[in-house]
Amino acid sequence: MTGEHSSRQYDTDLETLRSKVLLMGGLVENQFHDAIASFRVGNVELAASVIKADAGVNQLEVDLDDACRHLILKRQPAANDLRTVMATVKVITDLERIGDEASKIARIAQGKDTQRGALIFNDYEAVRGLASQVGNMLHDALDALARLDEKQAVKLIAKDAIIDQDFRAVMRNLITYMMEDPRTISAALDALWIAKAIERIGDHAKNIAEHVIFIVEGKDIRHTDYAATHLA
Amino acid sequence: MTGEHSSRQYDTDLETLRSKVLLMGGLVENQFHDAIASFRVGNVELAASVIKADAGVNQLEVDLDDACRHLILKRQPAANDLRTVMATVKVITDLERIGDEASKIARIAQGKDTQRGALIFNDYEAVRGLASQVGNMLHDALDALARLDEKQAVKLIAKDAIIDQDFRAVMRNLITYMMEDPRTISAALDALWIAKAIERIGDHAKNIAEHVIFIVEGKDIRHTDYAATHLA
Repeated sequence: MTGEHSSRQYDTDLETLRSKVLLMGGLVENQFHDAIASFRVGNVELAASVIKADAGVNQLEVDLDDACRHLILKRQPAANDLRTVMATVKVITDLERIGDEASKIARIAQGKDTQRGALIFNDYEAVRGLASQVGNMLHDALDALARLDEKQAVKLIAKDAIIDQDFRAVMRNLITYMMEDPRTISAALDALWIAKAIERIGDHAKNIAEHVIFIVEGKDIRHTDYAATHLA
Repeated sequence: MTGEHSSRQYDTDLETLRSKVLLMGGLVENQFHDAIASFRVGNVELAASVIKADAGVNQLEVDLDDACRHLILKRQPAANDLRTVMATVKVITDLERIGDEASKIARIAQGKDTQRGALIFNDYEAVRGLASQVGNMLHDALDALARLDEKQAVKLIAKDAIIDQDFRAVMRNLITYMMEDPRTISAALDALWIAKAIERIGDHAKNIAEHVIFIVEGKDIRHTDYAATHLA
């Protein structure tokens, strides 16, 4: 065991790491909301700000990975703390990918022709429900991470299957639009890529929930039906 | 410093970890090739075997993450070795995602109607070049990892930009098919999702190359133009 001062410093290191990860979570959550808003109203400046924000998120990924490695080197954490640090490394990867997906949505919003196909179908409407659900899911995943709330994490994992179903329904609808009126193809494909990016963000939110369970329970539940059997 | 026996055991641990990661790499490389082949010839049994193999890849992800954590706990690696272990954790994540993308391709191959749109365009031909390039890129990334060949890794990172360009060209072609003849929409969308999965595998191969550079050079070059400035 280290002395009291050193141990207090260790706690501070862990707490700093934790708060920076939550900061990164807040940044990508904003990126996602702004990306969807920029697509909805065709706001190219907002879309540009999402893409610009990604540089900060990328830098946080590099800095936080570095901080995790230094913490392990300096503190040689015991099993429980090491589990938390290793899960944090995984969370960081998922957060960075969420930022990437939000940027993809923003890039499509930038290229969006607001007149194109507008009379035939509302491309935002086609992905609205999915975006709202995944927005909530991401928020709850970050909340579960902040409070280390295992129950909430378990619920989220079960929710990902619903998102996947809804994504497939959105996809079928968009294909119907395209087939019925080929003039919608370009706009429908934009909506399709956005739906895909949203669905991927749902996957990453699920991954974060799995990391929370790993931190709290010490169980690696990836690729298992743990969530299905642990829902009250 | 630990004694000679202990140190030899440590080397064995590192070597075992390393060979298992390369084994995992070989598995996902096979998954990718088989997935593309199953789509090419409409072989649903081969597609099913790709999806089945993913369970083994997923289990390796869990086992190897666990092995990395235990190695850190037991050996408290010095800076260089810790860098290798942390990069290995990242490589494992990328390999698992490559397995996922190969499985997505296999699932599309399973649902493929070999008659559909066959007269109009060859959906395999549309993605053939991309699949071949990314297959080579994945092979070279795993080879660079096996030999810790930094030069090869740098070349691969530069190659990813070409893959992204080629992906966009494939996408534009497929959209043209769809617009010219709406009967191709369904088959063209299948080809589009497969092209997207292939492009993602290229991204993961690039990530692996970046991890190799991190292991060898100790530089985290993600989100930088390191590769562009280090090509001979």
